[in-house]
Amino acid sequence: MAAQGCARCWLSLPALLLLLAAGSAGSAHARWGGQGTSPHLQSIFLGRCAEYSTLLGPQLRDKNCTAIWEAFRAVLDKEPCAVLPSDYDPFISLSRHSIPQDKSLFWENNQFLVTSYAENARRFMPLQDVLYGRAADLLSWCRQENASELDYQSCPTSDDCENNAVDSFWKRASIQYSKDSSGVIHVMLNGSVPTGAYPVKGESCGEGSVKILEERLKEMGFQYSCINDYLPVKLLKCVDHSTHADCALNSAAASTLREVPFLYAEQSASLVVPLLVALAAGAQM
Amino acid sequence: MAAQGCARCWLSLPALLLLLAAGSAGSAHARWGGQGTSPHLQSIFLGRCAEYSTLLGPQLRDKNCTAIWEAFRAVLDKEPCAVLPSDYDPFISLSRHSIPQDKSLFWENNQFLVTSYAENARRFMPLQDVLYGRAADLLSWCRQENASELDYQSCPTSDDCENNAVDSFWKRASIQYSKDSSGVIHVMLNGSVPTGAYPVKGESCGEGSVKILEERLKEMGFQYSCINDYLPVKLLKCVDHSTHADCALNSAAASTLREVPFLYAEQSASLVVPLLVALAAGAQM
Repeated sequence: MAAQGCARCWLSLPALLLLLAAGSAGSAHARWGGQGTSPHLQSIFLGRCAEYSTLLGPQLRDKNCTAIWEAFRAVLDKEPCAVLPSDYDPFISLSRHSIPQDKSLFWENNQFLVTSYAENARRFMPLQDVLYGRAADLLSWCRQENASELDYQSCPTSDDCENNAVDSFWKRASIQYSKDSSGVIHVMLNGSVPTGAYPVKGESCGEGSVKILEERLKEMGFQYSCINDYLPVKLLKCVDHSTHADCALNSAAASTLREVPFLYAEQSASLVVPLLVALAAGAQM
Repeated sequence: MAAQGCARCWLSLPALLLLLAAGSAGSAHARWGGQGTSPHLQSIFLGRCAEYSTLLGPQLRDKNCTAIWEAFRAVLDKEPCAVLPSDYDPFISLSRHSIPQDKSLFWENNQFLVTSYAENARRFMPLQDVLYGRAADLLSWCRQENASELDYQSCPTSDDCENNAVDSFWKRASIQYSKDSSGVIHVMLNGSVPTGAYPVKGESCGEGSVKILEERLKEMGFQYSCINDYLPVKLLKCVDHSTHADCALNSAAASTLREVPFLYAEQSASLVVPLLVALAAGAQM
């Protein structure tokens, strides 16, 4: 069943756009504030589409990536500040596919953690793991003003104009993603951002902006639960911070280290070969 | 400094090939035992090359993906059982690039865990995160016997013939990877496989096949350490098994759950919205 009324749980991708803008051309002569069209846009787009439909989704084998690209590319015939979300309708209608029930994951301010946690749609299927989101993820694109070529120098952001090609794309894609979501809808927020999680200042479940969101959901009649420090995600963060006190495992046996002194000094002293027998205990899990 | 004598720490990719074979055409009429050429091979190859050189490695901007593809494709003019590792020399010479010191990660029997742990070369750079490995990762390819087209039905495995296109590719790629590795060399083994970690039966550091490897390294004069149940990798496995006793964190506060009863029964009962405020504590790490 489609998630009705989910227009309100649509979350934009400002983090992505900020990131793109941060690494942007930044040239003093750039027309716009955002990163220019990604080099090799077509090749990356087509490759991701082919890979997604071949390796990730056998049920997507009938997708015609060339036609999907052409529908996407057609939008770039428009002026860079005159692209509407609806201009992507033909693209979406060719590329959309069902999202498994209970697998939708909305997010705000933590794109890379969500991508890592979702792990290529294995655990969850956030927008960037749906074909139309994957094809364009982390890319930028726009046409030159008053010229037919793509602009590789800069592209407009929402500060330049609302109806820019990238923002309109993500609006349209997010609406489709919301419509096609069903069952349990997951939302991953970042309680640590100074501006608050959604989107005014706040921190944990029942507080600040999260409380506002919870109340909206209540008003709309959604059954929901809110979990602080969701354990699987905390464990994922611990992978990079395994010596942090919060990341110590109860199973005290921990890692056992076996070192052998350097025997033959005539060989390179910089060659060290740690062996990680990672899964000796893994089979029990 | 290059890792001298590292031909012995070269690890083949049998897990990958077995996987490919397992999902293979399997048609009763297939000539060979392995999966046929991957659909959209060229598009996937070119897209990965463009994405890798554009998004992952700004220092690789000068790589010519079309030329790299042509060098790769040229090997497919040969008979399917007559492809030598050296046939990929022109491909390797166009696509090779430096591997950051201390970032090499060799592995056996745990490809997907290694890919997940390496996370797009962020933590480590295993062969599948180097341009030439990435372009071909999880793909299959071969020419038809006595015909110039690619064979999409089946391709030879090592059981069919030694000099098949895929095995020869990974041999050549692994040799290059070993040559370009320097500093601390990491090896991730799987102590749980029935056949042993490397490659005869064994389990932990100092035991069975791992002991054999340790002794070889000692003979060769390498300084090394061996770690059982390497904590960051154990934590990564815990992401999928967070309720397992071994995965309990000492930081007892754990997740706090806040549930609100379903208020408006007239709306869909199947719509549940868990909110995961994942990072409230994340900022301290």
